[in-house]
Amino acid sequence: MSDQQVRVTFQPSGRAVYVLKGTKLLEAGARAGLTINTPCGGEGICGKCRVQVTAGACPAGPNDKTHFSPESLEQGWRLACQTAVQSDSIVFVPDASRLAGQHQIKTDSADSETPEICPAFRKTYIELPNPTMEDNLPDLLRLEHAIGPFIPHTAVLRHISQTLRQCDFKGTAVLAGGRLIDFEPGDTTTQSFGIAFDIGTTTLVGLLLDLTNGTELAVKSQVNPQVAFGDDVLARIQYASTGADALDKLNQSILQAIQAMIVSLCEQANIPSHHVYEITIAGNTTMEHLLCRIDPTPLGQIPFASAYGRGFALETHPLALPINAQGSLYVFPVIRGFVGGDTVACLLATRLTHTTDSVLMIDIGTNGEIVLFHNNQLWAASTAAGPAFEGARICCGMRASTGAIEKVLLEDDVRLNVIGNVDPIGLCGSALIDLAAELLNKGMISNTGKLLPPEDLPPELPDALRQRISIDDQGHTEFLLAETTAKGNLLRVVLTERDVRELQLAVGAIRAGISIMLKAANLTPSTLDRVLIAGGFGSFIRRDHAQRIGLLPSDMDRHKISHVGNASLAGAKLALLSSEQRAQGETLARQVNHVELSTDLNFQMEFAEAMIFPG
Amino acid sequence: MSDQQVRVTFQPSGRAVYVLKGTKLLEAGARAGLTINTPCGGEGICGKCRVQVTAGACPAGPNDKTHFSPESLEQGWRLACQTAVQSDSIVFVPDASRLAGQHQIKTDSADSETPEICPAFRKTYIELPNPTMEDNLPDLLRLEHAIGPFIPHTAVLRHISQTLRQCDFKGTAVLAGGRLIDFEPGDTTTQSFGIAFDIGTTTLVGLLLDLTNGTELAVKSQVNPQVAFGDDVLARIQYASTGADALDKLNQSILQAIQAMIVSLCEQANIPSHHVYEITIAGNTTMEHLLCRIDPTPLGQIPFASAYGRGFALETHPLALPINAQGSLYVFPVIRGFVGGDTVACLLATRLTHTTDSVLMIDIGTNGEIVLFHNNQLWAASTAAGPAFEGARICCGMRASTGAIEKVLLEDDVRLNVIGNVDPIGLCGSALIDLAAELLNKGMISNTGKLLPPEDLPPELPDALRQRISIDDQGHTEFLLAETTAKGNLLRVVLTERDVRELQLAVGAIRAGISIMLKAANLTPSTLDRVLIAGGFGSFIRRDHAQRIGLLPSDMDRHKISHVGNASLAGAKLALLSSEQRAQGETLARQVNHVELSTDLNFQMEFAEAMIFPG
Repeated sequence: MSDQQVRVTFQPSGRAVYVLKGTKLLEAGARAGLTINTPCGGEGICGKCRVQVTAGACPAGPNDKTHFSPESLEQGWRLACQTAVQSDSIVFVPDASRLAGQHQIKTDSADSETPEICPAFRKTYIELPNPTMEDNLPDLLRLEHAIGPFIPHTAVLRHISQTLRQCDFKGTAVLAGGRLIDFEPGDTTTQSFGIAFDIGTTTLVGLLLDLTNGTELAVKSQVNPQVAFGDDVLARIQYASTGADALDKLNQSILQAIQAMIVSLCEQANIPSHHVYEITIAGNTTMEHLLCRIDPTPLGQIPFASAYGRGFALETHPLALPINAQGSLYVFPVIRGFVGGDTVACLLATRLTHTTDSVLMIDIGTNGEIVLFHNNQLWAASTAAGPAFEGARICCGMRASTGAIEKVLLEDDVRLNVIGNVDPIGLCGSALIDLAAELLNKGMISNTGKLLPPEDLPPELPDALRQRISIDDQGHTEFLLAETTAKGNLLRVVLTERDVRELQLAVGAIRAGISIMLKAANLTPSTLDRVLIAGGFGSFIRRDHAQRIGLLPSDMDRHKISHVGNASLAGAKLALLSSEQRAQGETLARQVNHVELSTDLNFQMEFAEAMIFPG
Repeated sequence: MSDQQVRVTFQPSGRAVYVLKGTKLLEAGARAGLTINTPCGGEGICGKCRVQVTAGACPAGPNDKTHFSPESLEQGWRLACQTAVQSDSIVFVPDASRLAGQHQIKTDSADSETPEICPAFRKTYIELPNPTMEDNLPDLLRLEHAIGPFIPHTAVLRHISQTLRQCDFKGTAVLAGGRLIDFEPGDTTTQSFGIAFDIGTTTLVGLLLDLTNGTELAVKSQVNPQVAFGDDVLARIQYASTGADALDKLNQSILQAIQAMIVSLCEQANIPSHHVYEITIAGNTTMEHLLCRIDPTPLGQIPFASAYGRGFALETHPLALPINAQGSLYVFPVIRGFVGGDTVACLLATRLTHTTDSVLMIDIGTNGEIVLFHNNQLWAASTAAGPAFEGARICCGMRASTGAIEKVLLEDDVRLNVIGNVDPIGLCGSALIDLAAELLNKGMISNTGKLLPPEDLPPELPDALRQRISIDDQGHTEFLLAETTAKGNLLRVVLTERDVRELQLAVGAIRAGISIMLKAANLTPSTLDRVLIAGGFGSFIRRDHAQRIGLLPSDMDRHKISHVGNASLAGAKLALLSSEQRAQGETLARQVNHVELSTDLNFQMEFAEAMIFPG
């Protein structure tokens, strides 16, 4: 199958991905972790997604010709949203075409600047006069005369005299919220780092930032090791409720993962971890509670009250997080119940309230969050989609990592794209949606989700596809997606009827949530101005396929739907870069109307209805 | 000798002391730890020191008769400053005659109220509505709606949900400086305690207070166990400078003593230690540094810079202090160099700046602090008196505890008062001063400090006294103060020539400091309006004796001299009772002009001069 794949290398980052021929550069970029500006929704109208193809053939289309001079076209300039890749290519993405910060998302094209960088701490280099008998001020008062009043951290109180004398009274003060958290010999003002984390039920992502200029230095993602204790939030709450030991295990499990990620991020970027002063954490309510070792038992019982609402800072030292010993961890505010910090971070990153449009945002993960902005009001709900979209509870499911089939097209036969251009070993969420949509299109799945047996398949179906359907030992139908031989063993990647059922449950939960939210605001899908799909996984969903399986309403203009990437991480990044953004997040959290789906009388009915695939 | 002692029991405290017949009730009260009001300086003029002698004979004097009706005199009412005790007595001291709080001192009689009680934390009992599906606010936001905004302590964040559910949402919030440091089931607002500490080089004193009303519940004093590492501040600094282990030992030594004192104070008062939320600490610069584990090395080297100037709060949990786990420790500000938090506390307690008088205050301890207030300006200096006044470095010296001779008169023979009315085992600082003054008066010591051998004694000396002088094996003269037989062993309490020399050094250091301070302000002793003697030990100094040996200038009206008790502890108490007082202390600390004696060119000359006893 690899002859259908081409390699696209993006500059200046150097990241390379394999995609199917014909894939738009915009999508290939997303695959490489680059979020390219598409305020017009990828329609080739706004011209914000300019890229330069410096190697490889990408024929110019009509929209390219209206946006570029013949000379520019000759130099390879193209609109990323319009240009399909045909062969191995090298593509240069100018800064202006990237969303400021690769994870940062804007929905308001009028204001696409990076926020003013103003982290919660600041560093100041100073040279103090040495003390003399005529001027023998206490050391900290001497410092205060130079940098203004502060409250010293106990550690600084203990080492300030020695440090000042070691560095001949020339050093860098690190201040955070009126506290002097460190004093470092010499000028270290350029060494100022922070890490933003998105803590998902299934996936953790960390992003190391240079806080002097906002540059992203390293990114790392991995599975949340708490999956060993249950794959959704309710399972984890239930486990945590069994006692302090269980809560400790969950807490230590996530802390150890974060500790290791911090070490790895600092190694990747080759920076000393004691110059990382702050971490921001955006996660759903349950994940944040467990990270902070707050017993989430009441959250798992009606009326689902969380321990806290406002965000807060914890010292990182007692959590053994390997950053500056006086560093701190900012935990995003919870809106209410299961609608947590990740949703607040998404609100912040998408600037959802900076518009007069009616906008629906869906953050797709193991816990799905749905936010509606309309008439200057915000509504939010959380719905338990389950981990199917992240590859769990699916027979051959896996995360979107090397070896995962991430895209599926059915033509005469199956066409696949595999991450890392290797033999496929499973399929990830986006491929699951693709496959279900394509099987529906081919008439191979009924709208109730039944994978049809050979005798019921449409007569016009190509033979190659027909031959992929078989009946297993239990009498269940399955579809063979790929078959490889690894070390003499046959590896079959299949889709089972049960997989389709899991997908229906996930789709149903989100779709029912959307319906109830829209009703709460007296809206219908067609009256929405925009729909934003957030979530690390969300970026790779094909919009038409999502509509085909009913994840998104089909009675909605596809061009109103756009991907905003991992908006939760982008929000965590903004809160790290700017105290003002952090304060905005706190304000937003308190403005949201919470919609509780689990006790909504209409939810079960909507859910059952949403399980049926659109006709 | 005990036939010369009488027992005086004070009511309502029930404290009893043994004193020599003829001792004024004022002095007996001080001995029992009661500081009785004497704004007129004990002249029998102001009538503020009224007490009622309910048992035992105390003849009324002329001043009594001007202040009390015949009926009152009949009921035993007397002026404590004028009345000499003649036999075992019971004396009732009304609240109005005590300084507010037994350690609190006022110098301004116009304003002798206790400060408004307003500690750094406050407790509020609240009953919250239970959460429902219609009202499922996060727990901390629910609390915030009731008590206003706060930042939760991590521990509260972790236990709030469980606690609220255990107590059916009825409990007591404990807030300190905008932080929610605890939430306790039920109404605990009456359980609100704090402990004030005076941390001296030689002596530690702790005072447990009920912070709802300012009542003193228990007091405890003991030797500072750091004396094992050196008996003055320079010796401790030198030891601390030998490395981190030494600093740890000093730090742990004081912390363990404080830990034990806290346990003992709470046991005495029978209160649970988790309802103690705050500790205040007043100590000299070195003691405070060691308590906080701040390396004092730079303080021991020219130009004697301390690590900090402003006071600060530490969490008590990392220090293993057994109070509320989220409690805190307030450490008094340092003025500069060796002039530390104890001096600030004295300034606060004596309200030295609330007057138009020129006032000299001397805080007598191992480190002597001298403060001058004149023309609205403050000067302060620290002088290394050494531990002689506290009984150390003296052959038979001891602390003012049971068995210590605390008062000496020489008449035909020696007359002694022994603490606890037991056989004497040593002498404490006040007796040392008494004895030296009396020996000077009798012509038994020369003004250079020589204890005269038998052949040089004045011919008119009573034989009993003459026989107490002997020559030891080394040819040194000594004076026998007492001789007892304990368990078959002969115990001799003597004064040696070397003891006299130690006393001279202590006196010289303080007296030289006073001279330099007065010169700095262009004053002479006779122009001072008042002299205050502070320090736990200072209360027991006989003013005439202190003048006789030159500790206080002799060219000064004795009636201008008054005792203010342990003003450092009184200041620590004020800072515990009132945030406003604490803030005043911080302001005062920054207003003081520091006089550095050790590098003053005149100090050595003044010192040598002050070593000579007045003629």
